[in-house]
Amino acid sequence: MNMIEIIAKKRDKQVLSTEEIQFWIDGIVNKSIPDYQSSALLMAIVLNSMETKEVADLTEAMMKSGDILDLSQIGGIKVDKHSTGGVGDKTSIVLTPLVASCGVKVAKMSGRGLGHTGGTLDKLESIEGFDIFLDNDEFVDVVNTVGCSIIGQTANLVPADKTLYALRDVTSTVQSIPLIASSIMSKKLAASTDTILLDVKVGDGAFMKTIEQATALSEAMIEIGRHLNKDVRAILSNMNQPLGSTIGNALEIKEAVLTLQNKGPKDFKELCLDAASIMLTQAKVVSNYEEGYKLAQQKLQSGEAYAKLLEWISAQKGNIEVIKDLSKLPQSKYVTELNSEKSGFINEIKTEQLGHLSMLLGGGRQTKDDVINYAVGLELVAKTGQKVQIGEPIIKIYHDKDLTEQLIRMAHDSYVIENTIKETDPLILKVID
Amino acid sequence: MNMIEIIAKKRDKQVLSTEEIQFWIDGIVNKSIPDYQSSALLMAIVLNSMETKEVADLTEAMMKSGDILDLSQIGGIKVDKHSTGGVGDKTSIVLTPLVASCGVKVAKMSGRGLGHTGGTLDKLESIEGFDIFLDNDEFVDVVNTVGCSIIGQTANLVPADKTLYALRDVTSTVQSIPLIASSIMSKKLAASTDTILLDVKVGDGAFMKTIEQATALSEAMIEIGRHLNKDVRAILSNMNQPLGSTIGNALEIKEAVLTLQNKGPKDFKELCLDAASIMLTQAKVVSNYEEGYKLAQQKLQSGEAYAKLLEWISAQKGNIEVIKDLSKLPQSKYVTELNSEKSGFINEIKTEQLGHLSMLLGGGRQTKDDVINYAVGLELVAKTGQKVQIGEPIIKIYHDKDLTEQLIRMAHDSYVIENTIKETDPLILKVID
Repeated sequence: MNMIEIIAKKRDKQVLSTEEIQFWIDGIVNKSIPDYQSSALLMAIVLNSMETKEVADLTEAMMKSGDILDLSQIGGIKVDKHSTGGVGDKTSIVLTPLVASCGVKVAKMSGRGLGHTGGTLDKLESIEGFDIFLDNDEFVDVVNTVGCSIIGQTANLVPADKTLYALRDVTSTVQSIPLIASSIMSKKLAASTDTILLDVKVGDGAFMKTIEQATALSEAMIEIGRHLNKDVRAILSNMNQPLGSTIGNALEIKEAVLTLQNKGPKDFKELCLDAASIMLTQAKVVSNYEEGYKLAQQKLQSGEAYAKLLEWISAQKGNIEVIKDLSKLPQSKYVTELNSEKSGFINEIKTEQLGHLSMLLGGGRQTKDDVINYAVGLELVAKTGQKVQIGEPIIKIYHDKDLTEQLIRMAHDSYVIENTIKETDPLILKVID
Repeated sequence: MNMIEIIAKKRDKQVLSTEEIQFWIDGIVNKSIPDYQSSALLMAIVLNSMETKEVADLTEAMMKSGDILDLSQIGGIKVDKHSTGGVGDKTSIVLTPLVASCGVKVAKMSGRGLGHTGGTLDKLESIEGFDIFLDNDEFVDVVNTVGCSIIGQTANLVPADKTLYALRDVTSTVQSIPLIASSIMSKKLAASTDTILLDVKVGDGAFMKTIEQATALSEAMIEIGRHLNKDVRAILSNMNQPLGSTIGNALEIKEAVLTLQNKGPKDFKELCLDAASIMLTQAKVVSNYEEGYKLAQQKLQSGEAYAKLLEWISAQKGNIEVIKDLSKLPQSKYVTELNSEKSGFINEIKTEQLGHLSMLLGGGRQTKDDVINYAVGLELVAKTGQKVQIGEPIIKIYHDKDLTEQLIRMAHDSYVIENTIKETDPLILKVID
């Protein structure tokens, strides 16, 4: 077997065998295959695609390229959810204790944010003391005791993906359903849960711009699960406006806490309840979606979900006083409220632009080594579909440095306000299971 | 401008600008663009192709990446021909003095053989003393004095092509009309002649397996010529059997000399006269193909073409005694004649296999550093379309080492002998001008 022939097969639209894919991934890990051969194969995959069997083989080979979490000491069905990355997406922070409060074990490895999308780990670290660096045993221990845990990815999780992702990033080979699906799923599968719920974001602030793309990606990942005996389902959710009302780490923690206290924004709460009911169905603690929805709703109303949050944060050494008194979360020096420059209907909010603005305020990373300011961010006072009058507040900017004209302009221009109302898509576009 | 965006454009089937192509080639030469980016772009070009303007831009940028021959001190129209590489292809060695004997300046840079195809330089070097390492001034001098010269490629001829070719070879990105056309034409254009005749080989022993592929390649190269104001024309010639009767360096020199003495095999002589008449037309010394054919034929018959050969070889320090007495050319220790194992019609000769056999005898290189044995090779006693009886000779093997059973088998199996005759293609398949 040799790499030149493997590249030629994919160039000629042939199907790679399990052994050929394994040969490639082995060669990436032991560095016997040079980057210039991998990048030629990556481009051939981008342009000629892969069949589902090939994608499953690629995912499995990648998954096995590094450490695999051992969750064997946790009884019952372990569930996980994964978001493809959005703006203002604090869903995991609500779902994790919410689902755990229903008696299901939630064991989740998460990532950091980069560019205009935030990361769950960064948000959690805005809670004083919160420790995301648990080892395998500690992680198992917290899940067994509390019912849930979120930790950072272990250092040797899917090393083949680290190499490939870095290469894809500089060779314009990121955009490919087989490559995106295998990258996500190899990491999820190495985390060893029994079920995975995918929250695939669609629209301006998301990687997938259309429902068609998002459906294709979801189906590819569900198919991988089918090949590898995992229950994988997907929600397609709308990223044509930020999720909930806040963008920024501590601001999003606050919104998540309020949601767990049953006081969050209606649209975001709906997404959490929908996602929770699917996860409960996957865990087989309820027999259908409606039962799951009811159970989750009840846990929000009874305060059990919020109590589970406190228990979880405490177990990962977070200071629960900042949760009980949200004014103790990191606070920005200044808050500037912007008023609408015209009257009309908010027909669109440029999500990616607001994500970018939050990053420029210091709330996100432009490069991997940037240090995050947890306090800064944005609060959307008005959202898509609302009517505003000139001079009415639309957005609050939480900042530590003086605002430049350019940043203020970015915020204003994110709101598309027009004379006639346009119909907007719902938050949940589709469920694939 | 950056390479990631350039790769993305070609991935998305967009047209690269002159500046973008120049940026890439500059980056290859100054090593600022890593191989893994070039190989991703190469695969995108293989799969998404290029428009003629892009191919012309690529050719020009590559051509200018290194030295360009200065032929300004040679008066009149300078002509060149190029073969895409065949088995038993000694055409250049006949054409060069033949066309020069008609009063046209032939200035040719040539390459060495690799794998199953032979190289003109290797063949010329089987003539004792023949010097292919002339510098620009010496080359110009020989062309001015004698009327023709063939030299090896200068060290810094199209360095971008050297890098790209090495990369294409190990990334399965060789097979691409835009890349093949620009690679050939950049070197031909850097050789600075006014006209180029392309001899594009088609069939088993050639790089292009079908007339359609060869036509596409020829048209791409002619189009490059049109963009860069060069008179480029093409002959498509059949490589479904070796050209002439011999394969091997000294054996081919002998056949070329006999052809220049008007005693060569009919089919090969026809190809030479056809090619010569096109080159004479390009040089405008005749007004049409028929006049050119007549003039070339007359030079063969009168002995002027042969006299020009002696003059040329002498000018490049070759010992003309070995030409006058061909038994002084390198001779193999043994000659083994094989007889047909059955009676019937020779419907096919496996050209690539015979080229490979000649290489295994020592007549060609498997790797760039192999040393060539000029004496060994093959002589086809019977060719396609002939009828043979069992026991009649079909091929002679010229060898220095004992023949293995395997080599003898290879020679026998190259002849496809069947009971009923199949129609075979003519030697010249098509002329594109």
